[in-house]
Amino acid sequence: MSSVRAFVGQPAADIETPALVIDLDAMERNLTRMAEFAKAHRVRLRPHAKTHKCAALARLQMAAGAVGVCVQKVDEAEALAAAGIGDIYLSNEVIDPIKLQRVATLAGRIRLAIAVDSALGVERLAAALAHAGTRADVFVEIDVGHGRCGIAPVAAGALAHQVVSNGLAFAGLQAYHGRAQHLRGAAEREAVIRHAVGLARAAQASVSAAGLECRLVTGAGTGTFVHEAASGLYGEIQPGSYLFLDRDYADNEPSAGAPRFEHALFVKAQVMSRGVSHAVVDAGHKSHAIDSGLPKVWQRDLDFANGGDEHGILRTRAGSAAVLPELGDAVWLVPGHCDPTVNLHDHYVGVRGGLTAGVVETIWPIEARGGVR
Amino acid sequence: MSSVRAFVGQPAADIETPALVIDLDAMERNLTRMAEFAKAHRVRLRPHAKTHKCAALARLQMAAGAVGVCVQKVDEAEALAAAGIGDIYLSNEVIDPIKLQRVATLAGRIRLAIAVDSALGVERLAAALAHAGTRADVFVEIDVGHGRCGIAPVAAGALAHQVVSNGLAFAGLQAYHGRAQHLRGAAEREAVIRHAVGLARAAQASVSAAGLECRLVTGAGTGTFVHEAASGLYGEIQPGSYLFLDRDYADNEPSAGAPRFEHALFVKAQVMSRGVSHAVVDAGHKSHAIDSGLPKVWQRDLDFANGGDEHGILRTRAGSAAVLPELGDAVWLVPGHCDPTVNLHDHYVGVRGGLTAGVVETIWPIEARGGVR
Repeated sequence: MSSVRAFVGQPAADIETPALVIDLDAMERNLTRMAEFAKAHRVRLRPHAKTHKCAALARLQMAAGAVGVCVQKVDEAEALAAAGIGDIYLSNEVIDPIKLQRVATLAGRIRLAIAVDSALGVERLAAALAHAGTRADVFVEIDVGHGRCGIAPVAAGALAHQVVSNGLAFAGLQAYHGRAQHLRGAAEREAVIRHAVGLARAAQASVSAAGLECRLVTGAGTGTFVHEAASGLYGEIQPGSYLFLDRDYADNEPSAGAPRFEHALFVKAQVMSRGVSHAVVDAGHKSHAIDSGLPKVWQRDLDFANGGDEHGILRTRAGSAAVLPELGDAVWLVPGHCDPTVNLHDHYVGVRGGLTAGVVETIWPIEARGGVR
Repeated sequence: MSSVRAFVGQPAADIETPALVIDLDAMERNLTRMAEFAKAHRVRLRPHAKTHKCAALARLQMAAGAVGVCVQKVDEAEALAAAGIGDIYLSNEVIDPIKLQRVATLAGRIRLAIAVDSALGVERLAAALAHAGTRADVFVEIDVGHGRCGIAPVAAGALAHQVVSNGLAFAGLQAYHGRAQHLRGAAEREAVIRHAVGLARAAQASVSAAGLECRLVTGAGTGTFVHEAASGLYGEIQPGSYLFLDRDYADNEPSAGAPRFEHALFVKAQVMSRGVSHAVVDAGHKSHAIDSGLPKVWQRDLDFANGGDEHGILRTRAGSAAVLPELGDAVWLVPGHCDPTVNLHDHYVGVRGGLTAGVVETIWPIEARGGVR
């Protein structure tokens, strides 16, 4: 594992590269804007910690009003719980009995919720909790059009009934449309979520028909939360990326009524080789994830081309007056996708006062980095 | 950081998922075949440890005849040196004075070599080594057509002269064509390397004209090493991926005369949600890198579709008799690209006796995981 090569009080200009850097001022504005949005729209905010994987950031979110956090993996739940986070929702299915033992043990230490989408999952979860003598809130996940996890909305009542029959606490519906987050057009996203809300209402009706109360519908991400919040159905939203705003989300046409978020996560890189018409930086896709496209160069009119695992290639744009950076110069990259970029690093370097003139204020461990189990 | 959830003696079927698993039998055959190739063709073998980032594997390669290993980052060199690897070539440029201090310190503990491609890089390296009172072999990197790092071949003599003028040990030429490795056609790769060899000869002539001896030309990767080895010019080859053979390399048309390599690196995944016509596994691109495309499902006639950071979606192919796996079933994924996949994990789980019926024989830490600086 790599050690962090930055220290509190260090000028941002001196942080060794590549480094994962948070612009603390921008991040805090994002944090506040989302908290205010949730408050104004009377929805609970449970940010997704799969984005940041960091207890310090989860604590800041909760201090600003979040009811707790979501995670996708048992590893993440364990890592955040060990670092003091006391209210975690595992918004994903677990079918492995060994992992369910871990879930059940953890449920004895914090307030834990989990999603299910199969009878087998319910039975195994019930067995694990019974064996450990612990309890967890259980959400039935429905497929609202993503086509990944979740049962058909009309089947929600039957599975909720099974949850209760197995002695578990049915807490509501998990209804998340992942792909909708990244549709570029605002109208397109709104239409997809309108359809999703209709499916979630059908699921709610199915639960009612089974004689059960659906106390909460939870879901939504950074690309669509304004629509779930406006639905009158969703009681909780789960955005994660708003905290950092990656290049991919910034490429979305903004939704009406959404707070303005700013880029707050950067990979600092350095030119380590220089050709006549290109510069090579020391950050490739071992430093930033490229599943959602390449990073952009922050506040410089330069194109970033894929240079492989360890390099990035910078060129000036045709017709641009921009000057290629020189050997040793720093550039700041806005990652294409924040979540898997964070997962490549062991620490955040938090900078106060801007990227160029600022100073390192904090270094936060990314406790759940690599926590895929 | 995630803990490993496997143990020596455990049946492979029981390894908790997602897990990065080595088929030790296949890996050792790859190891031996490459070592035999290098011996038969009288070239030194210096495998690239950017692939595996693991001291145990570097040791096995050296025990089989490798002269040492290459790395791309100072972090990697430090991590492997700390774990006992004594001969490391940093086949990349370092321009940051702080990093060069680290290089100079390390050069006092192991046999170290490094690449340069600029006068500034030479001056700073010389200053750091002089300050530390240590020495390193210095290779001048030339651009043989990749268009990333390296100077023009005709400029090699002048830079080699600068190396010597600065009191450094000029050791030869670094001449690697990264993009050539992944060209699909065997003839296409051969043609590109023929051109690269021509450029390397021009660089060698430039060095001779500067009155210096070029003792070694080093380079090559898993896709092209047969051509560099046959060139009569390259004295050392640097393949890395041969050890694991990822999906991308297996998609190459084989080169005549190349040893046959086998898939030896897998991500074990588990079905954790099951629809009518698709199954969802617990491994997405936080478990396997997708920069070179999606993984393939090993020995099953199933298509793997991108399910995002934490999920993969399996479907049967139209017309195929394959059956979708059930909830809880394991599947083994062959990563699209081994190097950045390894960089997502903290441990290898080494299995002996095959993936299905085998047993965990070893667990190796990936010491340089995340070592991007």
